[in-house]
Amino acid sequence: MNPTTQQNAFASRVDQVPQSFIREILKVASDPRITSFAGGLPNPALFPVAELAECAAHVFNEYGPKALQYAESEGLYSLRLSIANRYKQLYNLDILAEQVLITNGSQQALDLICKLFLNPGDKVLVERPAYLGALQCFAMFEAELREITLEEDGINTDELAGVLRTDHVKLLYGVPNFQNPTGISYSDQKRQKVAEILKAYQTVFVEDDPYGELSFNEEKRMPVYSYLPGQTILLGSFSKIIAPGLRLGWMIASPEIIKKATILKQASDLHSGNLTQFILNEFLNRYNLDTHISCIRATYKRQRDTMLECLHHHFPFAVSYTRPQGGMFCWLRLPEGLSARVFLDLALKEQILFVPGDAFYAHNPDKQTLRLNFSNVEEPKMVIALEKLGKVIAAQHVDSINVTT
Amino acid sequence: MNPTTQQNAFASRVDQVPQSFIREILKVASDPRITSFAGGLPNPALFPVAELAECAAHVFNEYGPKALQYAESEGLYSLRLSIANRYKQLYNLDILAEQVLITNGSQQALDLICKLFLNPGDKVLVERPAYLGALQCFAMFEAELREITLEEDGINTDELAGVLRTDHVKLLYGVPNFQNPTGISYSDQKRQKVAEILKAYQTVFVEDDPYGELSFNEEKRMPVYSYLPGQTILLGSFSKIIAPGLRLGWMIASPEIIKKATILKQASDLHSGNLTQFILNEFLNRYNLDTHISCIRATYKRQRDTMLECLHHHFPFAVSYTRPQGGMFCWLRLPEGLSARVFLDLALKEQILFVPGDAFYAHNPDKQTLRLNFSNVEEPKMVIALEKLGKVIAAQHVDSINVTT
Repeated sequence: MNPTTQQNAFASRVDQVPQSFIREILKVASDPRITSFAGGLPNPALFPVAELAECAAHVFNEYGPKALQYAESEGLYSLRLSIANRYKQLYNLDILAEQVLITNGSQQALDLICKLFLNPGDKVLVERPAYLGALQCFAMFEAELREITLEEDGINTDELAGVLRTDHVKLLYGVPNFQNPTGISYSDQKRQKVAEILKAYQTVFVEDDPYGELSFNEEKRMPVYSYLPGQTILLGSFSKIIAPGLRLGWMIASPEIIKKATILKQASDLHSGNLTQFILNEFLNRYNLDTHISCIRATYKRQRDTMLECLHHHFPFAVSYTRPQGGMFCWLRLPEGLSARVFLDLALKEQILFVPGDAFYAHNPDKQTLRLNFSNVEEPKMVIALEKLGKVIAAQHVDSINVTT
Repeated sequence: MNPTTQQNAFASRVDQVPQSFIREILKVASDPRITSFAGGLPNPALFPVAELAECAAHVFNEYGPKALQYAESEGLYSLRLSIANRYKQLYNLDILAEQVLITNGSQQALDLICKLFLNPGDKVLVERPAYLGALQCFAMFEAELREITLEEDGINTDELAGVLRTDHVKLLYGVPNFQNPTGISYSDQKRQKVAEILKAYQTVFVEDDPYGELSFNEEKRMPVYSYLPGQTILLGSFSKIIAPGLRLGWMIASPEIIKKATILKQASDLHSGNLTQFILNEFLNRYNLDTHISCIRATYKRQRDTMLECLHHHFPFAVSYTRPQGGMFCWLRLPEGLSARVFLDLALKEQILFVPGDAFYAHNPDKQTLRLNFSNVEEPKMVIALEKLGKVIAAQHVDSINVTT
């Protein structure tokens, strides 16, 4: 009788969705004795707390009842317009407010895209490795996932072309800027090539871009959307450039797609938080977002520099790692014979936490990999912890060499 | 190439979801010349704006970075605990914080329940008529909907037993208190009978209760959950008792169900707004919710009284209507020969708006019905508008009699 004991009462999707190991880890990470490189948390010291407080006070004072009432499913019009205008400013792209749907972070945009496109068993291509939240969402909609190898300059386009030639694929999901988990960005050439290949098929590119603004240099690469606007859905988020606790992001697509997605949004949760949209809108009107973001970029660059320096000095040569030019993550590969799960157990004894890479693979996880977040670790703690981790690996690596020789 | 022109690119669910006529109407309703009985909007004059502003200022000051950071998918623990404790206070029910999942209003709880239980084609029972947002959500998950007649004291339990005897039904969805759209409540006897019937099958009762606290008298009926805790999922919302713009509601179920639903919540949007949860939590700590709600109840009761009086005095005897003992809606049935859609066209000429009832039926809509919201119309405007509407019906009714005689 009890539905908890009636496994067959649940939908078939339920067993498909892996629980996020990361979100479980986050619960441990709140222990102040732990140095956590886990999670994908932005640096909370950079949240514009006083500014948002001021905006909130103004919103309550000026728009109180309106900001607290039910609202349109599409989102606050002036916020949608601000988002559209920012693409004009950054990339000279012409996007209408009508092409912007406000979502609960870009995670909800993924949910809506799945609802819009996927029947069970539909094929979706993801990067290898890929953002875990996307893997969870695609699993929830019972997609059949195929991986495309992520190389130093973006996905392998020969693999992409090969799969598309033989299979009908609904979506390709990618994070072309400072990818989670690897920190890798697609080169301009790869972006154009991806667009060119997809153009020949019906496959929609889901371009998830939460980190694009967090570049550590002045080089700016055009979104894939700019090469393939009719066939790309571009996702963005305020989580990394303002604050994730507002839970606001967006989806950009053709007005027709947005209209359909809006109906699904209605059925999913009516609309995103109205009060937080008003506060955010006020923030964008009052403050210079570029000034704020440049502060985040400078801080994360310093944190990235410190991490790379520590990896260089304290980690054995046999450990390889990415050198991200933006974003929040480094991606490591341990020497053969040392799995990241075993390494994590050893790290935890030193009160250090990170995410083993296996969670980021749709299939056949590479168990040697792991992700380090640098945006949410204070540098003095980071230095101490990475020195310790380096020693742990060195000892293990020697052990494993001893064992195998 | 363009996904907007490739209809077959979309998932099969997309064409199933009816666009909410109500949410379209809401866009018109913002015209100040219009008297709108449409929408399900609470009275914004009763939103605790100053109190929430004070709480927000405190939250920014005291918990700033924490309230703006990513958070646990389950929701803020102390908020979950407050919700659990309220059921103790109101109904002497023992509910653990671990049985509470915070959602974006109860609409998102429906989305998660569908994700948890429904494969395409699974059977779901709904009231006839039913809450439109639920119909949309079940359609999105391609449920096969069956209607159970809603009578003056709740659903027809003979019909319910009959359907369950012959069909495997996953969910029964109902709103036992002051239902949307009818304002009808289930009697104690019907609640017990529903629980008793469901007990013999695996069917889960989804008890949606956004209006339960908005009673116009002291009579308190136990939730169906209390008679069938292992097999009921109880939904609640802050939208009608504090403010919908916060977009916060909850789902109560067994810890096992909540754990599964939490994984689906992660994949759907990671977590609900953290800042708004902190603000709401602060509000519940600082203020007496009962005092606040008693003010809403008194105001809505007055508005309900005014509406019933107007219907009594100005509407022809041939128009039947419910006498809700709480909530926000009256439900009308027009005389044969006058459809609510035709009536709406005539009403719009008088700058008056309401929702025709046909949208609230899963099948075979009763086109004579319509819903009037009384919580969001100022009484002087309400009196004038209902007098006008009464004249319009009277004229039409006479016309239709003339035509048919």
